[in-house]
Amino acid sequence: MVDYSSRRDALRKILINKAESAVFLDPVSIRYLSGFSGSNAALLVGQDNYLDVLLTDSRYTQRAKAESPDIEVQIDREFTKQIHKQLESKSIKKIAIDSTRMNISQGEALSNKDTFELVKMRELLAPLRSVKDEYEIKQIKKACAITADTLWFLINDLRPGMNEKQISNLLQEGFLKRGADGLAFASIVASGQNSATPHHEPTKRILERGDMVTIDCGALVNGYHADMTRTVFIGTCADWQKDIYDLVMKAQEAGRKKLTAGVIAEEVDEATRKIIRDANYGEFFVHGTGHGVGLEIHEPVFIAKDVKTKLSSGSCITVEPGIYLPGKGGVRIEDTCLVTEAEAEVLTPGSHEIICVA
Amino acid sequence: MVDYSSRRDALRKILINKAESAVFLDPVSIRYLSGFSGSNAALLVGQDNYLDVLLTDSRYTQRAKAESPDIEVQIDREFTKQIHKQLESKSIKKIAIDSTRMNISQGEALSNKDTFELVKMRELLAPLRSVKDEYEIKQIKKACAITADTLWFLINDLRPGMNEKQISNLLQEGFLKRGADGLAFASIVASGQNSATPHHEPTKRILERGDMVTIDCGALVNGYHADMTRTVFIGTCADWQKDIYDLVMKAQEAGRKKLTAGVIAEEVDEATRKIIRDANYGEFFVHGTGHGVGLEIHEPVFIAKDVKTKLSSGSCITVEPGIYLPGKGGVRIEDTCLVTEAEAEVLTPGSHEIICVA
Repeated sequence: MVDYSSRRDALRKILINKAESAVFLDPVSIRYLSGFSGSNAALLVGQDNYLDVLLTDSRYTQRAKAESPDIEVQIDREFTKQIHKQLESKSIKKIAIDSTRMNISQGEALSNKDTFELVKMRELLAPLRSVKDEYEIKQIKKACAITADTLWFLINDLRPGMNEKQISNLLQEGFLKRGADGLAFASIVASGQNSATPHHEPTKRILERGDMVTIDCGALVNGYHADMTRTVFIGTCADWQKDIYDLVMKAQEAGRKKLTAGVIAEEVDEATRKIIRDANYGEFFVHGTGHGVGLEIHEPVFIAKDVKTKLSSGSCITVEPGIYLPGKGGVRIEDTCLVTEAEAEVLTPGSHEIICVA
Repeated sequence: MVDYSSRRDALRKILINKAESAVFLDPVSIRYLSGFSGSNAALLVGQDNYLDVLLTDSRYTQRAKAESPDIEVQIDREFTKQIHKQLESKSIKKIAIDSTRMNISQGEALSNKDTFELVKMRELLAPLRSVKDEYEIKQIKKACAITADTLWFLINDLRPGMNEKQISNLLQEGFLKRGADGLAFASIVASGQNSATPHHEPTKRILERGDMVTIDCGALVNGYHADMTRTVFIGTCADWQKDIYDLVMKAQEAGRKKLTAGVIAEEVDEATRKIIRDANYGEFFVHGTGHGVGLEIHEPVFIAKDVKTKLSSGSCITVEPGIYLPGKGGVRIEDTCLVTEAEAEVLTPGSHEIICVA
């Protein structure tokens, strides 16, 4: 279904005038370029498709052949030795690696040869991975649909007396029941004062009337991630809660409106941040506006100050401003969105308005 | 409950005569040394406890203070700059890093100073992490008990007509219901011919009478992993299936008997391998005998050929020989075991004998 060789061809274009070949040892890059989903592999991308080689160990013989039928699979645990052999046999002099995805020991083992030069590049695949193809968009849409469906059912069922951990378990069960492979990340369920912590880990704290509850969760489908957050209120919503909610809602809407092909990433961040800053809550919006999602839950493009990347059609990006008042509570609203030439498509649909449940 | 400062003190002893300080950027090392469980942090371990510093970003202010009360927490996204400042203010000349857990770009950013020298060490924390303390053993025991309980309930319920994916979902639900935080790893459910693939990913293949089914799974509790495998038979067990099952059972028992403090890792591997090799199935046992489990699902000590590490009391290690006949099927039996001065304690209890269900 997926044409992995065309992804490797796109990489070959990036390498022109920089290196003749590239080596990957990290599972995510390897999965993107070959389809192979095992935990232990090396991938050599050569000057031409028929020179590409996937190395893995004998636990994965069948899986590698099934998942990567268009690439030569070699079963050999000694990746470095094999790669050196391949590079020498092809007289390759310059080999690209992703220095953000290879550890120092791996780099040293690989470069332990004077026959070729390592060309270190940062986030080598980011330009490719940040623009999703049809298959990827389908997986992310499915993960997002499962996430939104599960979250809205759950929000409807929230009651005083439930605890955070229990809600987090219900999310996981709901995802599986709807066909997800698992969690995109450990769910955040932050109630009452806990909602002032953006990345709160669910506890046994029991929901009470008057609580705000922030739920940040995502399903995983065929390796692709979803990411969605809503903050809801149990029974009632106090004035101070309504004030910050309305502000975050407006900021999130402004971010979504700004999110379109051709815009610079930091401009989307500024669109949400300005609204919160102008209302004198700037210091309480303590994180970036969003991030790319795909084979990783956080991947380029990051939507933050000083990020000059121009957004492209086909990027899947979150918009998730928040306000966190220490000792009181916080609000975050987040959607995963598909960037298009027009307004971004929200993949995690549902109301952004204040909701009081129970 | 956990005395993280004593773990950092143990690290300081390792560093004597090698470096005055150590820097970590990977979440697992940081969690081990400080208790902090967030996804983005840097940890500087100084010459003395009061010089240790944990850096993280503002999403984690509260969590860092709660999880790491005995360490100075600084909120600053510019980790490298802050670390350089700290090192300079303390006139540190030699700083240790774990070269297997820091990427090349991070290493370059960190070493971009002529005021100190980076001392690269491989798996710097392995000597500490491979011997679990009381708290860690308690978490692993809990994860293993949940795993075994779930797996045995499920085995009892296996019926022709169920599919692999469905079984994998039931495992996940069972773990959560029993109090796990999630999965230690994506469960392997391999039925019929699929069981010839050691690391098979569950499909919609439907269980039939006469199938062998290998289930490899583990629960996650407070960051600690469990790992357990059983192969069972649906309805009947053919002679060839019984032959390889009995062999793997004997090999696994021999491995467990050998697994004791003072033994060299490769000797445990040889104990299981010899039995399988002597019966002329050696080429079909395509992986190592086992691995350490703890904050990671695979961590040192690895039980494989040429590993000369002496085992210690308090290590948690899997024993998991297998035989995989391509095109036919395979058997693996695995327990997570606690190494003691006497016979290893099996943490994932239950029969090792042939079981036919349904």
